[in-house]
Amino acid sequence: MQLSEELAKRRDVINKEIEKALKIGDNVTLKKAMAHYPQAGGKRLRPVLAMLVADAISCTSEKTFPFGCALELVHNFTLVHDDIMDRDDFRRGIESVHKVFGEPTAIIAGDALFSLAFEVLSRTDVEPAKLRGLLRDTAVIVRIIAEGQQVDMEFENRKDVSEDEYLSMIGDKTASLFSLAAKGGAIIGGGTEQQVEQASSYGYHLGMGFQIRDDIIGIEGDEKAIGKPVGSDIRNGKRTLIAVKAHEVLKGKEMKRFQEIFGNESAGEDDIKDAVSILRSAGAIDYAQNAANEYAVNANESLKIF
Amino acid sequence: MQLSEELAKRRDVINKEIEKALKIGDNVTLKKAMAHYPQAGGKRLRPVLAMLVADAISCTSEKTFPFGCALELVHNFTLVHDDIMDRDDFRRGIESVHKVFGEPTAIIAGDALFSLAFEVLSRTDVEPAKLRGLLRDTAVIVRIIAEGQQVDMEFENRKDVSEDEYLSMIGDKTASLFSLAAKGGAIIGGGTEQQVEQASSYGYHLGMGFQIRDDIIGIEGDEKAIGKPVGSDIRNGKRTLIAVKAHEVLKGKEMKRFQEIFGNESAGEDDIKDAVSILRSAGAIDYAQNAANEYAVNANESLKIF
Repeated sequence: MQLSEELAKRRDVINKEIEKALKIGDNVTLKKAMAHYPQAGGKRLRPVLAMLVADAISCTSEKTFPFGCALELVHNFTLVHDDIMDRDDFRRGIESVHKVFGEPTAIIAGDALFSLAFEVLSRTDVEPAKLRGLLRDTAVIVRIIAEGQQVDMEFENRKDVSEDEYLSMIGDKTASLFSLAAKGGAIIGGGTEQQVEQASSYGYHLGMGFQIRDDIIGIEGDEKAIGKPVGSDIRNGKRTLIAVKAHEVLKGKEMKRFQEIFGNESAGEDDIKDAVSILRSAGAIDYAQNAANEYAVNANESLKIF
Repeated sequence: MQLSEELAKRRDVINKEIEKALKIGDNVTLKKAMAHYPQAGGKRLRPVLAMLVADAISCTSEKTFPFGCALELVHNFTLVHDDIMDRDDFRRGIESVHKVFGEPTAIIAGDALFSLAFEVLSRTDVEPAKLRGLLRDTAVIVRIIAEGQQVDMEFENRKDVSEDEYLSMIGDKTASLFSLAAKGGAIIGGGTEQQVEQASSYGYHLGMGFQIRDDIIGIEGDEKAIGKPVGSDIRNGKRTLIAVKAHEVLKGKEMKRFQEIFGNESAGEDDIKDAVSILRSAGAIDYAQNAANEYAVNANESLKIF
């Protein structure tokens, strides 16, 4: 089961589901603000993951559409609110919701996407008792994501973030929703208890690997790949596994130079190039790449049951 | 059934339920921010309403606790986010969440309260098929509340808000949740289709009357009753039925004087007294009082079926 091959084929189906869900409400501005990110693309990894797992169990991926759509709406709602908090003005190559519509409408649009997610979730075609479980799991995960975002923000004021703390934070903020996607796919697909558990573990490891790789792209990628200006993560002093490792291994004048640039909003293009080169020489990028690969291997281990 | 008599007796039960629900999560700051408003009091009108309706049908109010608690968490989440948008620095006599914890944490705390509401809702002891309906109804109402808040904000840039537009806005922003509270109480209490419908109508009219009366207190009340500085609503140019009526009937120099004060953040105490006196002479306060009374009468009409 190669995730990348399945993506393009299934993304269209999910996009139609999302488009349908967003045709709701009377206020023109709010509707536009809600649709701003979902319509700007995105890989739809979470719904696709739910589909793949349901198909692996019982070829019932169409039953996951509402659940998958709900996950994508949850994901988009968190992006809208995170961008306000992180003062990120670009996302997916376009201006962020709060830049276009103002902060108050962005807060409301996030809330409305969140409620719409649960509205769509209520349409899931599973036995009512299973729906209760999906409702509980989804609600719990959103709370855990919120906690992850709070911890992430608190990291900004600390220099001593450990690798364990970082991994726990992205576990909450990112991997938890991937885990739920795979778990929900298994539940809706009628999987056994063991299959549900293994799917959940698969999604978790996939999500961890995804986030670490996303952070690498944020450092090494070009503007098109990142969807926002090159060097944003370095200028914002964003805690990533790379940054955590750098703070652990860098010494002397390289540490001094890195600290001059990291978190410095007015850092120039040459500064950013310097910082990336320091990170590369110190082995921090390779270290993150290896960690991402290890999570991918572990994810595949969890798949053996299928 | 006198709502006021039942309040004190039932509020304690709900408070314990809310306290229990809030004992969750690992991040200390986020937990405090989430508990900031719920622990500062509040009348718990919505859960109490659900209890009263369930008792009227089948003496099953204890079955409404999780649902009622979920509604109160939803209500508190909207207060946290609304206060950020409306730049309200006080609520229930204390500093607002964003003043104490900063805007980013306030946004997250609102999101976390919202997800916690659905987590608690999933524990409702009703047949699974009814739970699906409660989930859908609750999600829809939160989206409608968000739309009401968006419309309310758009009113701030308009002078020509009509009475119908205003009533539709508070219907979305306030009465919808009262309506859901009563409707949910009827569903959980095992009411007939007709009883569920009438309960919903009862809650709606009660909520309309409540909001209009709340706006009158915001103009005429003292600091203790309002929970924030006297005159805030006038200084903020808040659209209320009183303000809408004033813009309709005031003329000449009284209109001019009122417009000098309404929405003027630096208006002094004497200005506020002037504005209140103009509103009273013009009959705008009496007009709102009559409207509130009429909604109360209509609410009682809906009760006849019980």
